[in-house]
Amino acid sequence: MQALTITRAETLKPKPEADKLGFGKHFTDHMFLMNYTLGQGWHDPRIVPYGLISLEPCAMVFHYAQEVFEGMKAYRTADGSIQLFRPMDNVRRLNDSCDRLCIPRVPEAETLEYLKELVRLEADWVPNGEGTSLYIRPFIIATDASLGVHSSHTYLFAIILSPVGSYYPEGINPVKIYVEDDDVRAVKGGTGYTKCGGNYAASIRAGERAEEAGYTQVLWLDGVHRKYIEEVGSMNVLFKIDGKIVTPALTGSVLPGITRRSCLDLLRDWGYTVEERLLSAEELFQAAETGKLEEAWGSGTAAVISPIGEMGWGKHHVTINGGKIGDLTHKLYETLTDIQWGREPDPYGWTVKL
Amino acid sequence: MQALTITRAETLKPKPEADKLGFGKHFTDHMFLMNYTLGQGWHDPRIVPYGLISLEPCAMVFHYAQEVFEGMKAYRTADGSIQLFRPMDNVRRLNDSCDRLCIPRVPEAETLEYLKELVRLEADWVPNGEGTSLYIRPFIIATDASLGVHSSHTYLFAIILSPVGSYYPEGINPVKIYVEDDDVRAVKGGTGYTKCGGNYAASIRAGERAEEAGYTQVLWLDGVHRKYIEEVGSMNVLFKIDGKIVTPALTGSVLPGITRRSCLDLLRDWGYTVEERLLSAEELFQAAETGKLEEAWGSGTAAVISPIGEMGWGKHHVTINGGKIGDLTHKLYETLTDIQWGREPDPYGWTVKL
Repeated sequence: MQALTITRAETLKPKPEADKLGFGKHFTDHMFLMNYTLGQGWHDPRIVPYGLISLEPCAMVFHYAQEVFEGMKAYRTADGSIQLFRPMDNVRRLNDSCDRLCIPRVPEAETLEYLKELVRLEADWVPNGEGTSLYIRPFIIATDASLGVHSSHTYLFAIILSPVGSYYPEGINPVKIYVEDDDVRAVKGGTGYTKCGGNYAASIRAGERAEEAGYTQVLWLDGVHRKYIEEVGSMNVLFKIDGKIVTPALTGSVLPGITRRSCLDLLRDWGYTVEERLLSAEELFQAAETGKLEEAWGSGTAAVISPIGEMGWGKHHVTINGGKIGDLTHKLYETLTDIQWGREPDPYGWTVKL
Repeated sequence: MQALTITRAETLKPKPEADKLGFGKHFTDHMFLMNYTLGQGWHDPRIVPYGLISLEPCAMVFHYAQEVFEGMKAYRTADGSIQLFRPMDNVRRLNDSCDRLCIPRVPEAETLEYLKELVRLEADWVPNGEGTSLYIRPFIIATDASLGVHSSHTYLFAIILSPVGSYYPEGINPVKIYVEDDDVRAVKGGTGYTKCGGNYAASIRAGERAEEAGYTQVLWLDGVHRKYIEEVGSMNVLFKIDGKIVTPALTGSVLPGITRRSCLDLLRDWGYTVEERLLSAEELFQAAETGKLEEAWGSGTAAVISPIGEMGWGKHHVTINGGKIGDLTHKLYETLTDIQWGREPDPYGWTVKL
């Protein structure tokens, strides 16, 4: 393991007020950086004061989006300690993204250690308000100063930290989602299963159209048949249909979410039949119209669980569970957040104390 | 039109030697910059010394790849003057890319004027060796310092210039291309028709696999049926089959290339039947195996015309025109480059003198 050097900031920023945190707007005093150079590998792991990244205008990331990221959180428990939730799963998924984007893999154990060291240094930034946490954003960008289209020979790996507010400051309320028939987020053979920038860039327009139409998020269909449900917004999506759990299978264009996997683990433990399979919008709306769609929710790091109360698709409009959060959705939310914030024991070994 | 301010570099860089230019490796002394701020629009157009771009680590472009670019060239003619090739087509296509990526459109007439002013200032950088030119790279990046997934409220529009060498320093030789069956570059409903970074990031892995297998470029199939030819590498692709010209139709996942359009204009003028339609790999390889595939070539700004001599697809391997550049391919190359470098009159009004 390469030695981590630490350069401390000379002055520390004031912490934002707990009720004004928002998401990804404030950043801590330090960041982690590590460089990659072809022939030398990853080198110079270091923690430095948070500050600007300066690149040549021709840097590859600005032109060909050779870039990947991850998202995870550090939680403050009641006894004041800090814990992470399945962090190695994020590090491994970062490397899966790297493989697809032709970015060199990061050393996994070391990366987790560097990340923990950064959070330890910034422990005062982990907020303790209800539902608040420290969002951790690792990302890698291609830095070659050249316009040829090929994989870069140099990269910058950075980890930045942002204290974030409660996702549900006014209580957990179901959202309205809209099935997108025109724009496609991802397709099999593409980059949909990775956290690369291009997926998110492609999704922005449909998200804005949904918002203009009075919806909160887009329900994405697959790019091949334009028929099967894939994700909701930038979350995975799960349904309770006729007593069973149904969620889109990981066919290559769906992100293998860590909250998704945690939901499925819990649900199987609770005795539910879980079907990871193709689910068409037609089947979903039929289930809703015949009363078999009992609950629906998104899963992701930011919201943990986001209940879905209404769905629109062309002329179709359905309400789920009377527009209220379902019992199972609520139990999942409570169970996951109890484990994450350390309010209940963690029988799964998901949490990692700092 | 907003006044363009010019800040000249205090020292000028030495020009690279004509035979060591390469592609996109050297940059001139100045660059154009313009900012966008929500509510204010595009503002502060300026030419400044070429230098680093400094952004917050949380800048949107590093995470969600909200970024678009263009590529075009300035050519030195025999009388020493400088001309551009269909530059307004590039500016309009930049705006088409902006629309898809939810980036605010740039003012077209002004942008062309700013671009011309930058090239005028850097006139000494337009090389005059055979086949050399000044590559012009306009690009726009999202600069909001926030991790929320939505369209940025601030952007930076930059134009950088790079003197580039002849694409064919050893003469124009046909390339070997390989049909990619696994990775997909783009899909209908996605961003394939735009020049956004994500398309290029998604294409890198297949390009590297093709190179490892001894091929030069990837022949891309469509993402829905995995059947129809779309592009070759990062170029459009055209075929002469049984006397007729066949090229993939612009179905949404194919870039509407300006060199492609110029080829089609010339070919129609020369009396050829041009078919913009779906062309399956199966039809293409059958045409090759029955001797009906007479010529094949890629078209793009960098190479202008890139003849294809061999094609591989699984167990299939075919040679086109004995592996030599075809007569029509050669005539297209000569005609286009004669117009671009001003060696022949331009009856189409494609060239714009500075």
